[in-house]
Amino acid sequence: MDFKRVAKDTTKTLISYLTYQALLTVLDQLKETDPPQAYWLNYFSAQTSIQDGDAYIEELLRARQELAFRIMTVRQHLAEEIVDFLPEMVRTGIQQSNMEHRRQHLERITQLTIPEPPTLDEQQSDSG
Amino acid sequence: MDFKRVAKDTTKTLISYLTYQALLTVLDQLKETDPPQAYWLNYFSAQTSIQDGDAYIEELLRARQELAFRIMTVRQHLAEEIVDFLPEMVRTGIQQSNMEHRRQHLERITQLTIPEPPTLDEQQSDSG
Repeated sequence: MDFKRVAKDTTKTLISYLTYQALLTVLDQLKETDPPQAYWLNYFSAQTSIQDGDAYIEELLRARQELAFRIMTVRQHLAEEIVDFLPEMVRTGIQQSNMEHRRQHLERITQLTIPEPPTLDEQQSDSG
Repeated sequence: MDFKRVAKDTTKTLISYLTYQALLTVLDQLKETDPPQAYWLNYFSAQTSIQDGDAYIEELLRARQELAFRIMTVRQHLAEEIVDFLPEMVRTGIQQSNMEHRRQHLERITQLTIPEPPTLDEQQSDSG
């Protein structure tokens, strides 16, 4: 497995996701303080994919630089506050999720091997 | 800002992304060792969204449990190998990206204020 490439791709995905979370935060703030600006940013973000966070910032810089700068500041702030917690949360999350999937699957398989109770047949032969 | 919620949502996104990377890894392995199985998994994954990693695993468990177990094992392994590097990579990545965006934007603004050199006009009046 190419861990180095996976780590790099995961970092890019994470940065785009934090850019998206920063956009949501700025939208929430603007809804309170400057509704027309919130409306404009919402419309812009519906037209411009944020799948690639850096391409999105690039477009926004050309359209309304002050909003782009604001989102850049917020995503950096978000990163500083949360990234240190992620390793433990992701590790634990995957372990728990895997365990839960195995448990549910085992339960499902076990139920499949138990024969159906013959209630309906018995009732039919009683009434017939 | 609700850092706790953002950390939780980011963890979920990361787990789904690592599930996707685990799928890619298993697909690569199967292409070498068991092409029909690789073909089946590729087809299944085109039909079933992996946007939500846990819903994907759930579906795959019902269809071909041995493949689901394999992807679960690989995603746990990937997490163990890479998550500890992510905080530093994401922090540095965002800092560098923000700096680069600001630099490029400054360059762009500065260039806009410099008048175009009148070369073409001069050439035209020379040749005209």
